Amino acid sequence: MSSDYVFACYLCKEEFLPSPSILKCAVCDSALDVKYVHPSTATTDTGILRMPLPLKTPSDKFSLGEGNTPTINLNNLSNWLGINLLTKNEAQNPTGSFKDRGTSILISCLRSFGIEEIVEDSSGNAGSSISAYSAAAGIKAHIFAPESAPQPKINQIKVYGAVHHSVHGSRDKVTEVAKKYALDNNLIYASHNLSPYFIEGTKSFGYELLSDRKSTFPSDIVIPVGNGSLYLGIYKAMNELLKSNHIERMPKMHFIQSESVKPIAAAARNEPWHGNMVTATKAGGIAVGSPPRIDQVINAMKASDGQCDTVQENEIIDWQLKLAQWEGIYSEPTSAAAFAGTFKLIESKKIAKGSTVLVPVTGSGLKDLSPI
Amino acid sequence: MSSDYVFACYLCKEEFLPSPSILKCAVCDSALDVKYVHPSTATTDTGILRMPLPLKTPSDKFSLGEGNTPTINLNNLSNWLGINLLTKNEAQNPTGSFKDRGTSILISCLRSFGIEEIVEDSSGNAGSSISAYSAAAGIKAHIFAPESAPQPKINQIKVYGAVHHSVHGSRDKVTEVAKKYALDNNLIYASHNLSPYFIEGTKSFGYELLSDRKSTFPSDIVIPVGNGSLYLGIYKAMNELLKSNHIERMPKMHFIQSESVKPIAAAARNEPWHGNMVTATKAGGIAVGSPPRIDQVINAMKASDGQCDTVQENEIIDWQLKLAQWEGIYSEPTSAAAFAGTFKLIESKKIAKGSTVLVPVTGSGLKDLSPI
Repeated sequence: MSSDYVFACYLCKEEFLPSPSILKCAVCDSALDVKYVHPSTATTDTGILRMPLPLKTPSDKFSLGEGNTPTINLNNLSNWLGINLLTKNEAQNPTGSFKDRGTSILISCLRSFGIEEIVEDSSGNAGSSISAYSAAAGIKAHIFAPESAPQPKINQIKVYGAVHHSVHGSRDKVTEVAKKYALDNNLIYASHNLSPYFIEGTKSFGYELLSDRKSTFPSDIVIPVGNGSLYLGIYKAMNELLKSNHIERMPKMHFIQSESVKPIAAAARNEPWHGNMVTATKAGGIAVGSPPRIDQVINAMKASDGQCDTVQENEIIDWQLKLAQWEGIYSEPTSAAAFAGTFKLIESKKIAKGSTVLVPVTGSGLKDLSPI
Repeated sequence: MSSDYVFACYLCKEEFLPSPSILKCAVCDSALDVKYVHPSTATTDTGILRMPLPLKTPSDKFSLGEGNTPTINLNNLSNWLGINLLTKNEAQNPTGSFKDRGTSILISCLRSFGIEEIVEDSSGNAGSSISAYSAAAGIKAHIFAPESAPQPKINQIKVYGAVHHSVHGSRDKVTEVAKKYALDNNLIYASHNLSPYFIEGTKSFGYELLSDRKSTFPSDIVIPVGNGSLYLGIYKAMNELLKSNHIERMPKMHFIQSESVKPIAAAARNEPWHGNMVTATKAGGIAVGSPPRIDQVINAMKASDGQCDTVQENEIIDWQLKLAQWEGIYSEPTSAAAFAGTFKLIESKKIAKGSTVLVPVTGSGLKDLSPI
């Protein structure tokens, strides 16, 4: 099969012919990314620029209207913090989170391979996103989610008609059970954390930043990270924009984790951490004890001169309410964690006063338990 | 005070100088609309066209990123129904419903008059929208909502920091209590049903239809109607687009009500109806027993050669699930009612096979009780 792209190992650079069943490097077991070997024949509109897609033709793209979310100046918080604080509201995607960007491309690619039934594990947002797109694309989806996932997210998965499998145990346990189910039933494990296609979709967030004429391009971007699919997508976009001379320098790519689940922050800071140290957090979207792309996230942070920090549960809820009551934005706790972390990075002078800082609202507060 | 616009009575055509406290015609007690007497100095981007706004300068517009929602082809339902069915997903507005379009302009205008505290009544969607925009604009909002409003909508109102007043009784009773509170406390009653500013905002939905190059311009538009603020906004937009020669003919403007609460449909069909005939409906957004703009809605329907119909509770839930499971769109029951009604209008040949029909998703299913 000839293709405009291959799967390339981010670490050892080995290349593989694309296949929906390849999720890791066969040589060194590291994560894979899409690498274009010819100019892509399919592209998608992201405002000023067209972004390449791992598809044969633009009409292969399966969309529910994701992306092109608004970038907003948060004036009240900016004045208080002494920075120019922007957000891009990803709650305004079709299923209420940034995952729809990745899901659109993942489902488009799976459909182009003729896949009709898939398995996925998710704390909720990716699960409901994949349920929705699968429903519309005529793909049967099995979604494995932790028993502890918020009821609105579980309801949403079921409403779209996916088969919901509730798993007792940690987030990592959910992944293990989903993988086994896929293997036992000879189904494609359409992992949004591992599939190179997913990050090809989240990349559009970064491309769109170029198109917002009302805002200065950010010097700093602060992302809440669980598996890092948004973080790595934006980082990949920034590299492509640098290479094509559309931006002059890489923004500093900071990431935030919850103090309750901090495998990547701990590794970045050389602190001891084990999966069994996980405690409960309201930021369910970043409660991932053993993220598969951990080294890739840390490399991106270092290469972009970024920082990381962790936040407490009370800080997360404080910032969720602050966003709602100062700026009229009802975010999920996961993105409130990134705002709380931004505050700490300013306090510790890792983000300079006067900087233009973009922090996404990764998903809607309506999909989680109410903070009051 | 000089202004580019006046308030004009839709019935007797009497004109009034704009004021946030004028909500009805002082001569005949009918509803008022904004009428531009000079070309407006403030406009907003709706894609191809700029739309006039009742503001001094564009920077007076207060936005959280509302509007410019995607228009989607519903291919699976189109094939089944034998029409070209489009939706515009208004759940992708900042607070999850089309109300944000109206609220943005209402709050912008109130702020330009220096208003600092307001009273509003709502079944939920307008309440949460006005809470959000008021929070960000520094306006104190009192939101009166029926005790029976879905908990997610009430939580949302509270999260944004508005004062929530729960009212026991019908939707009409809620309006009565809110009006009295405003009068007793000398506050502005910022009714989204009566204020001419609100419809000036919902109008942008109609303007945006012109900009979607992927879709044919609809021959038929089907709207769920409670008070008619979206229906009348689109109708006003279509008239302006006709007048400026941007469209050649008015689409047929159909409206749908729930069989449980059908004051406008009953009046249009000369059926007996009284407010005391209201029964419970899952379509909370259109459960309005005594809508103030009833004659205006019927006039628009007749002038556009539109039709109306009513739907049963089971049809509403059936269509809510059909939209989710066939097209991956989780709508509120209110908009599912319009899809159910579209089906009936096709069955009764009031919408012809082969027509291009646009039915909005007016709000997110996440804000209501789960259908399963």
